[in-house]
Amino acid sequence: MHRTKIRVAEDALDANETIARANRDDFDRAGVAVVNLMSAPGAGKTSLLERSLAELDGVRAGVLEGDVQGSMDADRIAALHVPVTQLNTDAGFGGECHLDANMVRSAIPSLALDEIDLLVIENVGNLVCPAEFDVGQDVRAMVYSVTEGEDKPLKYPVMFRSADVVVVNKIDLLPYLDVDMGLFEANLRAVNPAVTVIEVSAKTGAGIDAWCQWLTSSRRRRLVDTRTGPAEAPVNPR
Amino acid sequence: MHRTKIRVAEDALDANETIARANRDDFDRAGVAVVNLMSAPGAGKTSLLERSLAELDGVRAGVLEGDVQGSMDADRIAALHVPVTQLNTDAGFGGECHLDANMVRSAIPSLALDEIDLLVIENVGNLVCPAEFDVGQDVRAMVYSVTEGEDKPLKYPVMFRSADVVVVNKIDLLPYLDVDMGLFEANLRAVNPAVTVIEVSAKTGAGIDAWCQWLTSSRRRRLVDTRTGPAEAPVNPR
Repeated sequence: MHRTKIRVAEDALDANETIARANRDDFDRAGVAVVNLMSAPGAGKTSLLERSLAELDGVRAGVLEGDVQGSMDADRIAALHVPVTQLNTDAGFGGECHLDANMVRSAIPSLALDEIDLLVIENVGNLVCPAEFDVGQDVRAMVYSVTEGEDKPLKYPVMFRSADVVVVNKIDLLPYLDVDMGLFEANLRAVNPAVTVIEVSAKTGAGIDAWCQWLTSSRRRRLVDTRTGPAEAPVNPR
Repeated sequence: MHRTKIRVAEDALDANETIARANRDDFDRAGVAVVNLMSAPGAGKTSLLERSLAELDGVRAGVLEGDVQGSMDADRIAALHVPVTQLNTDAGFGGECHLDANMVRSAIPSLALDEIDLLVIENVGNLVCPAEFDVGQDVRAMVYSVTEGEDKPLKYPVMFRSADVVVVNKIDLLPYLDVDMGLFEANLRAVNPAVTVIEVSAKTGAGIDAWCQWLTSSRRRRLVDTRTGPAEAPVNPR
């Protein structure tokens, strides 16, 4: 019984990889860099996008919003006149807790890839399963809120290990918390020694410029790595 | 393909129900009230237990800690000399994002049910799947942190609808947030009109007495509902 269950899970992940490759090929042909943006519920993914999409200079961004149900986040993004597509996962039993490659594939026809340079896929708020499913992204970014405690990298290591960048959000609240940020960073380095860390406050705007630079460089990386060759040096090579 | 997937999910939930009933029978025979404690990562479930287990008068509490991996929370509870059992979900692929009835069943032999009156099952931090899996509890409690934003009941309705009580934590941070608690409560009532709401700060201790009273009454409810008959009026009948 247990063996069967694991077999089913492995088959599902194999199938997901195949579809993720097809997504990546489509994004590549269109020259669109893709960021898979993940976090716990309420860490501030949408607020971060509201703050940063307006600051991206010369990059046409689009957003794919993943939620169990509703379109509240997509409405917030649409208000900025950024192209956005809503993807709901509640066709599954009770609602899937993550996006998978097939869900993203189903949204590609509505994404107008020829009109954007950068696609941010805002995943369902969850620190476990979103990290396990490749959706065809180039890079994974995760948002961690300083209110969540120092221990999270050790409790959700697959997520923190999968991230190319950890955006530490809500730093405006640090004076009112007992959180030990040195301990958080030590815990983070224990599971992902080389990860880029950017401290921001989506509320005050602190650090948003560094995050925008990272987003822009993720686009440049895509162009350098897979399309036009190293005509332009990547800002933040992996 | 899609039909097969849904069929598999339904079969899994049917099997879970059967095992949850067996758990409930075991807890019932032992006279132990069981609370399934759920929240997003970092909302403060363990801090709440640290604050409250020491305040429970005349109730012998035990804890079952559910985590993807590690035993950090169980170590914190054990330091209070409260009996605790750690359950890790990382036997699944990458780590299961919730507890199910079978995982809890596997822990029952180590729980010493005859030595406790109240068992708190601290679920994996996640606002989606834990609400979908009955583990044999009497009541479901969820912790919501005021830092998570007003919209969460509408984005994770299955979780907020499943809860018998919503513990609103970190109210000490309210002066530093823009959160509209009236809007949060309206969103909550939209999905779960009759739910009990208790505002607390696990940091300052505010509201902990009300939460402890609810926990104690959940034990009384169990005794009234299923064992000794209505000799004692339930404090908070459902």
